[in-house]
Amino acid sequence: MKSPETPMPHPHRFSPARPCFIKDVPHWDLDTDVLVIGFGAAGACAAIEARQAGARVRVLEVASAGGGSASWSGGEVYVGGSGGTSVQRANGFEDSTEDLATYLMMAGGPGADSERVQAYARGAEAHFRWLQDQGVPFKGSYLPGKWIEPTSDDTLLWSGSEQAWPFRDKARPAPRGHTAQFKGWGGGKVLMEKLCARAAELGAEVHTDSRALTLVLDEAHAVVGVVARMDGTEKFIRAHKGVILCAGGFILNKDMLARFTPGALACNKEVSGGNDDGSGIRMGMAVGGAAIHMDQFFATVPFFPPASLVKGIFINGRGERFINEDAYHGRVAHYVLRQPEGKAWLLVDNEIFGRPVIKPDVTVAAVGETWEEVEEELGLPPGSLVHTVKTFNEQAEAGRDPLFHKAADWLRPLTQAPFAAISYCSADLEAHAFTLGGLATRPGGEVLDGDGQPIPGLFAAGRCACGLPRWGEGYSSGLSLGDSTFFGRMAGRTAAG
Amino acid sequence: MKSPETPMPHPHRFSPARPCFIKDVPHWDLDTDVLVIGFGAAGACAAIEARQAGARVRVLEVASAGGGSASWSGGEVYVGGSGGTSVQRANGFEDSTEDLATYLMMAGGPGADSERVQAYARGAEAHFRWLQDQGVPFKGSYLPGKWIEPTSDDTLLWSGSEQAWPFRDKARPAPRGHTAQFKGWGGGKVLMEKLCARAAELGAEVHTDSRALTLVLDEAHAVVGVVARMDGTEKFIRAHKGVILCAGGFILNKDMLARFTPGALACNKEVSGGNDDGSGIRMGMAVGGAAIHMDQFFATVPFFPPASLVKGIFINGRGERFINEDAYHGRVAHYVLRQPEGKAWLLVDNEIFGRPVIKPDVTVAAVGETWEEVEEELGLPPGSLVHTVKTFNEQAEAGRDPLFHKAADWLRPLTQAPFAAISYCSADLEAHAFTLGGLATRPGGEVLDGDGQPIPGLFAAGRCACGLPRWGEGYSSGLSLGDSTFFGRMAGRTAAG
Repeated sequence: MKSPETPMPHPHRFSPARPCFIKDVPHWDLDTDVLVIGFGAAGACAAIEARQAGARVRVLEVASAGGGSASWSGGEVYVGGSGGTSVQRANGFEDSTEDLATYLMMAGGPGADSERVQAYARGAEAHFRWLQDQGVPFKGSYLPGKWIEPTSDDTLLWSGSEQAWPFRDKARPAPRGHTAQFKGWGGGKVLMEKLCARAAELGAEVHTDSRALTLVLDEAHAVVGVVARMDGTEKFIRAHKGVILCAGGFILNKDMLARFTPGALACNKEVSGGNDDGSGIRMGMAVGGAAIHMDQFFATVPFFPPASLVKGIFINGRGERFINEDAYHGRVAHYVLRQPEGKAWLLVDNEIFGRPVIKPDVTVAAVGETWEEVEEELGLPPGSLVHTVKTFNEQAEAGRDPLFHKAADWLRPLTQAPFAAISYCSADLEAHAFTLGGLATRPGGEVLDGDGQPIPGLFAAGRCACGLPRWGEGYSSGLSLGDSTFFGRMAGRTAAG
Repeated sequence: MKSPETPMPHPHRFSPARPCFIKDVPHWDLDTDVLVIGFGAAGACAAIEARQAGARVRVLEVASAGGGSASWSGGEVYVGGSGGTSVQRANGFEDSTEDLATYLMMAGGPGADSERVQAYARGAEAHFRWLQDQGVPFKGSYLPGKWIEPTSDDTLLWSGSEQAWPFRDKARPAPRGHTAQFKGWGGGKVLMEKLCARAAELGAEVHTDSRALTLVLDEAHAVVGVVARMDGTEKFIRAHKGVILCAGGFILNKDMLARFTPGALACNKEVSGGNDDGSGIRMGMAVGGAAIHMDQFFATVPFFPPASLVKGIFINGRGERFINEDAYHGRVAHYVLRQPEGKAWLLVDNEIFGRPVIKPDVTVAAVGETWEEVEEELGLPPGSLVHTVKTFNEQAEAGRDPLFHKAADWLRPLTQAPFAAISYCSADLEAHAFTLGGLATRPGGEVLDGDGQPIPGLFAAGRCACGLPRWGEGYSSGLSLGDSTFFGRMAGRTAAG
């Protein structure tokens, strides 16, 4: 039996959702200027910049090594503008800052942040050079075609909805996905190894296996440090210049999803390196930080490659199309997810059919020698699918899609029997997701309260913050890494400055 | 010139987005058990219950009189279940608790709160009797037909999507809108006069022209009072048992809308009594309260009465239908608002046409002797509108709508020339809105932090909280008043208990 002198450990003594007040800090165990929570893409870049600005930097990483969810990603960074990156130009693509900004504003949806978009559009090309300067390898080659992630080690690819309606009508298209050189899926590992190594080399002190528990607030409501669990005990860490929350999103926290992002519960594959538990966002909320667009999430259904499948047409339970299928696969996925009664199928003919590479075991819900047979097998209203296909075929034959504006490259009448319907109905759906909502910040990383005013000493970047990607329907591959690395750097500079 | 002894007044010394710490409270000016912020529907009911539970109660109201936005409403309360209210039963309608609960779960959308729904479904019929006991008059009569708000002084009407697909397939329909007796639009004034008078009569001390500035937190992170502006000075008010935030939503705060609810910016008519500035929600966020479903809003486009217009069909820029037009007008409005390029029209023929009563000056975008003419005049893809009308007419003739499941009562072929298209395109749109997002609470009113744990001493109800209505597409008239009065009462009891 414990003696009365030994207090029982309280598992909830510190929680991300409640700040620790400075009066409850017995002493400071560690001391730094800038304290970065999370050593993923945003955290590594914040640490690099804060060190280069002369600040002492400590990084707390909950895992046993840096990398975060970025290191499980494809390593694709969405950059361009300023006439084009070296890779864009070498491969014959021009890209203006204005076109990039216009695209990003559309991609941000109704809540797009023009200040953030402008900063990014102006700085993205230089940011790409900076990534190269940190040692991140980019082969420099262009991979044509329509991919979800490249399996080659090529650099440049079309990674969003640039060539698709309505984006192409407003912003001149350019390929902007720049992938770290790596054969196969997983360039993110290369990217993060370089960035983490660079931060360490510059003298950022990295504490792995260290969990930030909550923020410390002083009497003026400024963030002055954190409480962390390190080596099995609670440590109090003083941050003289600021704390930067770079602890990722919350796709792994089902309770937070249920409360904030119920739509994402329809997705069954979490895109995460394992620690997207929302603790960073909750720490920010606890001191009055406003969390915005918490309902939004990236989702995708990898219905291609092979790219020939993009020539198919999606229909719903009314037998009607609902999207230009050549839009970014994540945009298509959001439209699939919202169809009434969870009913959606991809209609294909014999010429374009192929099993999707990423999920070959799709359910083929109907096969027929005529579209009438497919319609009947799916149990659709008589004539509905047949009218849709007939209209589509006539117009595709003429190279037009007046209803959904699918680009001519992907228009081809579906006339080669047998015909089939691949099910993307909710029961058969495999959808991948991560969260896009997070703390409201200025482009410099300052976390904002409910009035839009900065909370002294607190910064955020990456999926802890609500960044460029903040609208599921507008996501493009590389936006999250582009945002995390770019605004991670800005937060590091602001905090150190 | 001011002497150095006279400090300059700082307009932002206290802001809703930052709490006041108890160390900064010089003295308490006023003292109470339960302090209610806002004397609208939720606040009045909270005050009544807290007084009846024996607590001392003060109410701070920023306006010069009680009533809030509820007093500008139609005074319709969404109640039923338990076999039916006295009014439902007297008019021949049964209504089970299960059907009410099922309907409310559907109405809450993907983020519906089953605990809250169950509490309401079980208690709604008794709550209606309680409202009558407070002196709120209900005539008891039934008004058949399809209305937005009754202009008669009748009580019971169909006020949601109960008889419309998909709701009618899951929950047995019953009319549940119970309107306070008043001739014309504005039963809310009667309702609020009674509730405010009742609270005062029971001894709640009401301070009008009094603005709550921020919450006071003690050293254990409990809410123990507020700072308020009263009689031109700052007052510190101690609340021994709790503060209940009943200060409304934030439809009037354009800055909050831009950050949290950008979709609502497409609406140009705010449904508000004048003080929905989000200050209550921001006060809660400042102490770590989680704000949920902040993207959601009620919106409506009053495209009827006359009810004959419901027999028209809405189409988008593809010439396709997108909703069963007999669904609740606010549900239809959300579908109108999301059509590509803001294009939507209501197609009518000569027999059902009539100028909408609430907005007679609609734009008639096209008129023709044939549907071909209307299609051409609207500039739609050739054949698109014509196919839609032809299909609809054939099926309506047979009393069926296999695509959108509009109920048979509203199905009639559109065959009496001339034909017309009434514009509900974004440029012509007049949409009314209020916000549905707010602080996360338990049914008892306890405000929850990011971890889902209650913040001691803090409660919320009404549109300060995220209540039963939390999904724009699922709103039904009377849900906000029903939720505010019912859960206002529960918060009053919890705080006092």
